[in-house]
Amino acid sequence: MTAYSSFDIAHLGNVELFTPKFDESLWFFRDLLAMRVVAEEGDSVYLRTWDEYELYTIKLTAKPDAAGVGRTNVRAINPEALERRVAAIEAAGLGVGWEDGEVGTGPTYVFKDPDGHEMGIYYETERYVATDDKPSLKNQASAFPGRGVNARRLDHINWLAADVEACGSFMTDVLGLRESERIRLDNGRFAARWFHCSLKSYDLVYSDDWTKHGNRLHHIAFAPDTREDILKAADIFLENGIHIESGPHKHAINQTFFLYVWEPGGNRIEFANAGARLLLDPDQPVVEWTEEERKKGQAWGMKTIETFHTHGTPVV
Amino acid sequence: MTAYSSFDIAHLGNVELFTPKFDESLWFFRDLLAMRVVAEEGDSVYLRTWDEYELYTIKLTAKPDAAGVGRTNVRAINPEALERRVAAIEAAGLGVGWEDGEVGTGPTYVFKDPDGHEMGIYYETERYVATDDKPSLKNQASAFPGRGVNARRLDHINWLAADVEACGSFMTDVLGLRESERIRLDNGRFAARWFHCSLKSYDLVYSDDWTKHGNRLHHIAFAPDTREDILKAADIFLENGIHIESGPHKHAINQTFFLYVWEPGGNRIEFANAGARLLLDPDQPVVEWTEEERKKGQAWGMKTIETFHTHGTPVV
Amino acid sequence: MTAYSSFDIAHLGNVELFTPKFDESLWFFRDLLAMRVVAEEGDSVYLRTWDEYELYTIKLTAKPDAAGVGRTNVRAINPEALERRVAAIEAAGLGVGWEDGEVGTGPTYVFKDPDGHEMGIYYETERYVATDDKPSLKNQASAFPGRGVNARRLDHINWLAADVEACGSFMTDVLGLRESERIRLDNGRFAARWFHCSLKSYDLVYSDDWTKHGNRLHHIAFAPDTREDILKAADIFLENGIHIESGPHKHAINQTFFLYVWEPGGNRIEFANAGARLLLDPDQPVVEWTEEERKKGQAWGMKTIETFHTHGTPVV
Amino acid sequence: MTAYSSFDIAHLGNVELFTPKFDESLWFFRDLLAMRVVAEEGDSVYLRTWDEYELYTIKLTAKPDAAGVGRTNVRAINPEALERRVAAIEAAGLGVGWEDGEVGTGPTYVFKDPDGHEMGIYYETERYVATDDKPSLKNQASAFPGRGVNARRLDHINWLAADVEACGSFMTDVLGLRESERIRLDNGRFAARWFHCSLKSYDLVYSDDWTKHGNRLHHIAFAPDTREDILKAADIFLENGIHIESGPHKHAINQTFFLYVWEPGGNRIEFANAGARLLLDPDQPVVEWTEEERKKGQAWGMKTIETFHTHGTPVV
Repeated sequence: MTAYSSFDIAHLGNVELFTPKFDESLWFFRDLLAMRVVAEEGDSVYLRTWDEYELYTIKLTAKPDAAGVGRTNVRAINPEALERRVAAIEAAGLGVGWEDGEVGTGPTYVFKDPDGHEMGIYYETERYVATDDKPSLKNQASAFPGRGVNARRLDHINWLAADVEACGSFMTDVLGLRESERIRLDNGRFAARWFHCSLKSYDLVYSDDWTKHGNRLHHIAFAPDTREDILKAADIFLENGIHIESGPHKHAINQTFFLYVWEPGGNRIEFANAGARLLLDPDQPVVEWTEEERKKGQAWGMKTIETFHTHGTPVV
Repeated sequence: MTAYSSFDIAHLGNVELFTPKFDESLWFFRDLLAMRVVAEEGDSVYLRTWDEYELYTIKLTAKPDAAGVGRTNVRAINPEALERRVAAIEAAGLGVGWEDGEVGTGPTYVFKDPDGHEMGIYYETERYVATDDKPSLKNQASAFPGRGVNARRLDHINWLAADVEACGSFMTDVLGLRESERIRLDNGRFAARWFHCSLKSYDLVYSDDWTKHGNRLHHIAFAPDTREDILKAADIFLENGIHIESGPHKHAINQTFFLYVWEPGGNRIEFANAGARLLLDPDQPVVEWTEEERKKGQAWGMKTIETFHTHGTPVV
Repeated sequence: MTAYSSFDIAHLGNVELFTPKFDESLWFFRDLLAMRVVAEEGDSVYLRTWDEYELYTIKLTAKPDAAGVGRTNVRAINPEALERRVAAIEAAGLGVGWEDGEVGTGPTYVFKDPDGHEMGIYYETERYVATDDKPSLKNQASAFPGRGVNARRLDHINWLAADVEACGSFMTDVLGLRESERIRLDNGRFAARWFHCSLKSYDLVYSDDWTKHGNRLHHIAFAPDTREDILKAADIFLENGIHIESGPHKHAINQTFFLYVWEPGGNRIEFANAGARLLLDPDQPVVEWTEEERKKGQAWGMKTIETFHTHGTPVV
Repeated sequence: MTAYSSFDIAHLGNVELFTPKFDESLWFFRDLLAMRVVAEEGDSVYLRTWDEYELYTIKLTAKPDAAGVGRTNVRAINPEALERRVAAIEAAGLGVGWEDGEVGTGPTYVFKDPDGHEMGIYYETERYVATDDKPSLKNQASAFPGRGVNARRLDHINWLAADVEACGSFMTDVLGLRESERIRLDNGRFAARWFHCSLKSYDLVYSDDWTKHGNRLHHIAFAPDTREDILKAADIFLENGIHIESGPHKHAINQTFFLYVWEPGGNRIEFANAGARLLLDPDQPVVEWTEEERKKGQAWGMKTIETFHTHGTPVV
């Protein structure tokens, strides 16, 4: 293992989701997750979680025929880091070009990962200034909404990819992320790989797309405060007729306490709490799980649900 | 604000505590906090928390006459970062010199902060290999002990300092940390300043030492998994006759859920849970609290306890 | 101690609160506590918690000049128990007479406790039938609201009384309740006494009224699901400008985890969680606390807040 | 529904468990559940949970060939209630006779339920007086152990029975319990029935024994303080190699948050938290679930685990 050098990417910034059921999806994010609409543009609305320091977290876009994921933007730590990463992306031949950023986001370099997922990288951003949602404690972006699931912040994205190896190399070699954990099948190939910036245990993840379709989403995840929040979220989804796919339970991988639901448009949404889990070690070795080890199921023994390997968006 | 550049210090490594009641203090850390003794040397024992990836977390040293803090070691992210910081410390005239590291820690450059607290910086370290404390999940340093307070990892240290300004400048200019929050008194001076590496909201903190004695400790803190752990810890300390000084409650500053106790030797120990709170913004502006604002007390209105401003170790 | 015989009173039914700030108080109960308005009549609205099996929980009544408590109704376990208790009340010379019950409550015998608090006892009641608030699980009265504090059910009432001894005897000898805990001052008098029906550790409580005014309220309490709910409630009250008087903390007496706030009308409202605490022993001896013991403060050492002994409603 | 009359049975008192792996079972209850050994007699040890007001909670008996359940004792609320129930049992022809009680328990009338499970009923009992386990709060039976799962109190027993109807009638007609919930199959027969005394939602439960063997156990359950305790318990069982059969999850029936494990002897042990759920309504109608409704699985959608319908003790 080479010695660690610092991260050029600060964090996952925001994600665009497509939905064929726009009104129901909007209800899910705005009313159940307590997100705030900060802008509307064309067929899209931009929503923010209460603890988001930037203007928006999710861009929700109506798409008549299919759910799925649009662009995922990540923030660079400074202008030099942005330049370094753009150069690396261009060198890898995956660049698309510069665009004006959306809703508070500065100039964004657009590119694609090897599976065809659209991504963007930016540094400049506008910090959210609360108006009628001023928090009582000034070290908080906006008031705690106190309703529904109270989604706090975006935590990670997990893409499906036809070639998890190629996408993983892109994460480490081109974007400069580190890998925390991975599943290696008996045939030597990876079933999934988890990548992170800084102390978080994962931010960007690839899972094997059994359809080999390309450009599909496994899920995005929000991070609440506590495990109790996730238990309460399960009650709220139950009361509101949202399909609970799996959990609450604890992942063996990265030990996240989780709940998976499908938003009305069909996209899988996770609520995930890594608790006090931070990867403090700058040289943390990658934890690799074998096929045999994964047969034990999740941390407390629950078998991984079948639909994890049959449902992704768009559905193909 | 200048643009952020990355952190050379990865995290707070370990801390030496002095105690005039060695046996009782050892009982506190080993039996109540469920820490494991990994080495004994002279008048000291080295103890580790269960989620510590390095060999040890706390060095507990018998000192007949007084409690207090010995050396605080921090880990650099790589050899180059170590060199950079040593050069900066030497340039600041605060260096002491290289020493062999203790118990799994590589060569350590020893220095002092402007208040006279001894510190060390190292890069090389040995990862803990569990023996009879093997965890069931391989992505964990050792087995969850399942007893007492189950202290998970060291979270931060809060020193008392005669000159909080000077110590703060040392943190940012010499060690390259960032400041997250601070209290500025009406007279323009700082009552306390919180510094952090990476996503954690604080790691190293200075509070005004009203005695102007020098080299004193306000507290060290351990991070448990959840707020419920802190509530349970309060019950355990109650049953074991440990002085609970304040809490459980929520800090306004950095919004940490906290509990403060005094270990038998007199050192103040905090159990602190920042929950899902991460400082994702690489350019996060410092949050400054005024004297007026601090009069509101803690987050939910509890007044800050008097002894916070009268008790430190050594007691003088 | 005489052998236990069963309880004629099943539980605390509902309470009328007076408020000089009707609109703000209504906002507090309906919007922050997520209670549902089920009826309006004259200057009163009737509100229910989501897990209330009867029609209503709180009757909120506008009263221009003062906050305070109106009638407290308790439910008898069956018609014979109702008759027995009415006979005992009449024998004690404290009866007022029969009235038609309010909003789903059957014939109610109205009476006064020795301090002048109005009370009622009834057996017949109407069970709530959910309409647009149907729960997903049929063993639940109505849907979990998933907003604000989600007040689950009324837990207890704590009255101020000029003569705690006389009121206490009324509870045991006339209403047939049992006493779980009490505070006896050095002068031999009681500072407070806790009474309960069945397994709950308290339902009806008297605290000494230092003003000797008569017919005043110390507080009413709601029971949420978990301690985490109470921590979250504190955040919600903080964000909404509600005065948090004390807590979250754990009572030494009955070990309840608590939070006290003042609703906008001035009445003290507690959120209290006794957790798994049930008084299973049918002959449970009364736990008596001395003045000396109470100096230790609450369970984890927080001193009892001064305003507990200076604020009651109506304010006199 | 006839009007409610009060309960003659106060609560489930204690249970005898058989184990073919005595030492390992003892380790499970004493070391993992933090129960205290209070007596040893022949092939049995008597253990108590920390919040048990009587002397013991579980009698663990070595039995070379098979796990399973011995006598289950329940406590009557007073001597008259005891007499009434003994008369009813004798009238039902299920009485065995009076015996001296065990370890702090007074004279016990022994009988059998229609499935052949041995039961006992007693009124006199000895309250536990803590010695080296004195609690800091005097309203608690003994000190909070602060280790392992910290089992607080016995919550309920769930027997397998060849004829759930007959056993259920015995509960209501002979023991005078009430039924809270039940599952009725499409063929009109009951798959399971839950019975309770007083405010608890269940204490004694019968589930259909698919083997029709007679005198078998589905599980016994302990009640911890909080849901977080159950999540922590799962971690502790994981670390200690205990088979986690199902959970943590939330039951649809009675809405209990649960975790099921198998103790080393093979008996299924549940940790169950009904939270703030109390059956306040003295006339609470029985909630009946259909086969169709049960197909939805547990509250949040997890399918009921297969082994619930294939594993009982003794294994036959």
